[in-house]
Amino acid sequence: MSFTLDELARISGARLEGDPDCNISAVNTLKHAKEGDISFLSNRHYAHYLLSTRASAVILSEQDAIDCPTNSLITDNPYLAYAKIVNFLYPEKISNGQIHESAVIGQNSDISAGVTILANAVIGENVKIKTNCYIGPGSVLEDNVIVGENTRLIANVTLCHDVIVGSDVLLHPGVVIGSDGFGLAQDKGKWLKIPQIGSVLIGNEVEIGANTTIDRGAIEDTIIESGVKIDNQVQIGHNVVIGENTAIAGCTGIAGSTSVGKRCMIGGGVGISGHIEIADDVVITAMSGVANSIKTAGVYSSGVPITDNKVWRRNIIRFKQLDETIKKILKKLD
Amino acid sequence: MSFTLDELARISGARLEGDPDCNISAVNTLKHAKEGDISFLSNRHYAHYLLSTRASAVILSEQDAIDCPTNSLITDNPYLAYAKIVNFLYPEKISNGQIHESAVIGQNSDISAGVTILANAVIGENVKIKTNCYIGPGSVLEDNVIVGENTRLIANVTLCHDVIVGSDVLLHPGVVIGSDGFGLAQDKGKWLKIPQIGSVLIGNEVEIGANTTIDRGAIEDTIIESGVKIDNQVQIGHNVVIGENTAIAGCTGIAGSTSVGKRCMIGGGVGISGHIEIADDVVITAMSGVANSIKTAGVYSSGVPITDNKVWRRNIIRFKQLDETIKKILKKLD
Amino acid sequence: MSFTLDELARISGARLEGDPDCNISAVNTLKHAKEGDISFLSNRHYAHYLLSTRASAVILSEQDAIDCPTNSLITDNPYLAYAKIVNFLYPEKISNGQIHESAVIGQNSDISAGVTILANAVIGENVKIKTNCYIGPGSVLEDNVIVGENTRLIANVTLCHDVIVGSDVLLHPGVVIGSDGFGLAQDKGKWLKIPQIGSVLIGNEVEIGANTTIDRGAIEDTIIESGVKIDNQVQIGHNVVIGENTAIAGCTGIAGSTSVGKRCMIGGGVGISGHIEIADDVVITAMSGVANSIKTAGVYSSGVPITDNKVWRRNIIRFKQLDETIKKILKKLD
Repeated sequence: MSFTLDELARISGARLEGDPDCNISAVNTLKHAKEGDISFLSNRHYAHYLLSTRASAVILSEQDAIDCPTNSLITDNPYLAYAKIVNFLYPEKISNGQIHESAVIGQNSDISAGVTILANAVIGENVKIKTNCYIGPGSVLEDNVIVGENTRLIANVTLCHDVIVGSDVLLHPGVVIGSDGFGLAQDKGKWLKIPQIGSVLIGNEVEIGANTTIDRGAIEDTIIESGVKIDNQVQIGHNVVIGENTAIAGCTGIAGSTSVGKRCMIGGGVGISGHIEIADDVVITAMSGVANSIKTAGVYSSGVPITDNKVWRRNIIRFKQLDETIKKILKKLD
Repeated sequence: MSFTLDELARISGARLEGDPDCNISAVNTLKHAKEGDISFLSNRHYAHYLLSTRASAVILSEQDAIDCPTNSLITDNPYLAYAKIVNFLYPEKISNGQIHESAVIGQNSDISAGVTILANAVIGENVKIKTNCYIGPGSVLEDNVIVGENTRLIANVTLCHDVIVGSDVLLHPGVVIGSDGFGLAQDKGKWLKIPQIGSVLIGNEVEIGANTTIDRGAIEDTIIESGVKIDNQVQIGHNVVIGENTAIAGCTGIAGSTSVGKRCMIGGGVGISGHIEIADDVVITAMSGVANSIKTAGVYSSGVPITDNKVWRRNIIRFKQLDETIKKILKKLD
Repeated sequence: MSFTLDELARISGARLEGDPDCNISAVNTLKHAKEGDISFLSNRHYAHYLLSTRASAVILSEQDAIDCPTNSLITDNPYLAYAKIVNFLYPEKISNGQIHESAVIGQNSDISAGVTILANAVIGENVKIKTNCYIGPGSVLEDNVIVGENTRLIANVTLCHDVIVGSDVLLHPGVVIGSDGFGLAQDKGKWLKIPQIGSVLIGNEVEIGANTTIDRGAIEDTIIESGVKIDNQVQIGHNVVIGENTAIAGCTGIAGSTSVGKRCMIGGGVGISGHIEIADDVVITAMSGVANSIKTAGVYSSGVPITDNKVWRRNIIRFKQLDETIKKILKKLD
């Protein structure tokens, strides 16, 4: 199926410069686009591909449009315009609304009309799944789970008992929600497990990446507010609260009872300690360690980037003696 | 169901101050407790909620009891007393001891009486599952696995062939035990895989968090001793030995052939190199990197906490030149 | 079954010193070997076990052979010779080539002769699985997946729609290939998801560890070239390209659109930023952070190893003031 560039301009809110009747049927990168493709330029890294692109149209900024060799869709935010167009050109496949005969559904569960349940999914007792949900193969919903409308569990997702998931949520394969938090009390050199009696509440329009884990609360609930986007292999401890529209990149871990504000952006491989508060609109760059509360919006960092191994070896020896060395130097200087 | 405060005092070993006949039916946080709830104070972070708590009783230390506005259970270790009470008030649900008709069980497997096997679990050949175990939906036990009594696999757990798991073990969703270790030999620029012929032995009373992975040994077995508690998304390499009652927080990775002592506490996001030994009673704080053996008990650290991004940028440039700069300074000072 | 040392010398290409008719039936470590076992010495860490080993033969270097108390197989690369021998002594079990009755197979799927599909595996529509593949229990292959010959999915593996996997590939439990990349555009404080319309191409002889995740491309495909070996819990973002015969250790994360060269060795817990290029033959040591492209082969590092907690506390305070302090010192020195 193809659309005119004019239609795509309307959908994306971009200004068209060029042929409004140009037919577009696919998106592609500047480098690999061919006739009938639309491309975009939003990362300077790829700007050198613009001049030689064979795309039929390019979404870009006013400034870059000067160098555009073909039709342009001009906008302040080319990436957003691209997002709107790719959503339009590649709509989500509609599920068949059927329950596969191999799926197992427990007693008193309430499966709304239009819900698709794939092969070998297992639904416990007293589960409520609202309209148009997609429960992928091998997924497990334990007893008393509630899932809001249009929510999709791709495959092999596990929702533990009593977990509540909102509507328009997307859960990728291997996601685990509602596993026990790491609650242990010391008792004469051994550990006594603390039953985790809270649950997990997931808001609306949340996306959670493959193999990410979110623990249930120790007493109160772990809460992921609406609009939160979480990448793959993120670990969220018990009683954490993640504020609306925060995005968390892959391999990040957030320890128990910490709250993260709204609209934060947390990079990949970040570690955040337990029992602290992160304000709204905080940006934490990749591989940072956050040990204390952050009270004001801003950009925070701590990872140390690589150097040549030999230089690094010498530097870390200095680092291990840093306080001592600086004291010595300052003393001599006095 | 409710219990008198007197009963809870006996169960927890705490000293009661106040009304022994006060009825308690639930636990809650200081902040959100209401009548009939018992709460606790063990983390100073939450001390300011004590004065205004509506809990019917609070578990706390002698020192904090002075400020307690309601009945007190007084003890040196409020968190442990809380652990005992929450275990008493919220006993584990008893499973039905049935095998779901959709579960698949291989030849020569020996499933003891009282074992519960949920829908779509797959049990291989020659598997032995002892009494009162719970094998959750979608779990896979390959051939020759042995599971001790009262052990629970929540859902979608994978135990690879020949793995041996002790009794009273708790395995959370997505756990993989007995995957191949990362054993490779270089052969003219390519990698030759080394068959991993060892297995994994898990002791008793071990808890393993969601999506944690434990590789089988290359030759001998990987060993997780009794009482070890492992959080979510931890990676344990082949031939690692983890000593009794050690606790490991989320997102930590331990490379092959390393041994960790007894009663260690390893923070989240820690990386431990292969072929080293960590002594008993070692504490490693979150996000540390451990490259060499640790021979004596103590607290060890290396993560660098965040600063404002601009300050960080200047500091890491200095760090990359640290040895050079210090040499220059020391030379000038001579 | 046992073999003569002479046969093992031929298979491994090592030079035999001692009794060619000595019978070997198993491999073992130097420390635990007994009669009939062959062992090897390749890591200096274990050299002290050589003198007292009870192995019937040891694979080792010319230099170490001087101290060998038993038959020797002498070679420049003992670990490779061991790899060849253990592959010979412990051949992969042959699967039964049957499809379990509980497996679900979608319409128009093409399952070649000799393919083994275990219980509760779910195969979508238009899937193509070539000869001698092993699809373990609970694995999910969504629509249009293609799997090359001799490839094995151990258990609970998820291959999302349209993913293409080569031949002789080994995928460990919990692996997810083809989950959506983390593609989001900001729209007035909310996130708009970008459909991920690329796929994932996995070459031949690739091994991917337990619970590792590989995202599908945003537009073009994510590519894992032949011979790549990836450990457990690694995260590979969308549009990443990993060059032939590169090895990546556990818990490493590689952000989107980065390309890694051929024959690289990337340690555990490494974080690599998006949109950068790593040259061929680069070695990155464990827990390093890579923020920029690496243009030349070499060894690169950045993790900071542990010190005693008290020393560390003082050093990180100095680190947080590093630029300021050095400026002050340099000024005084002028």
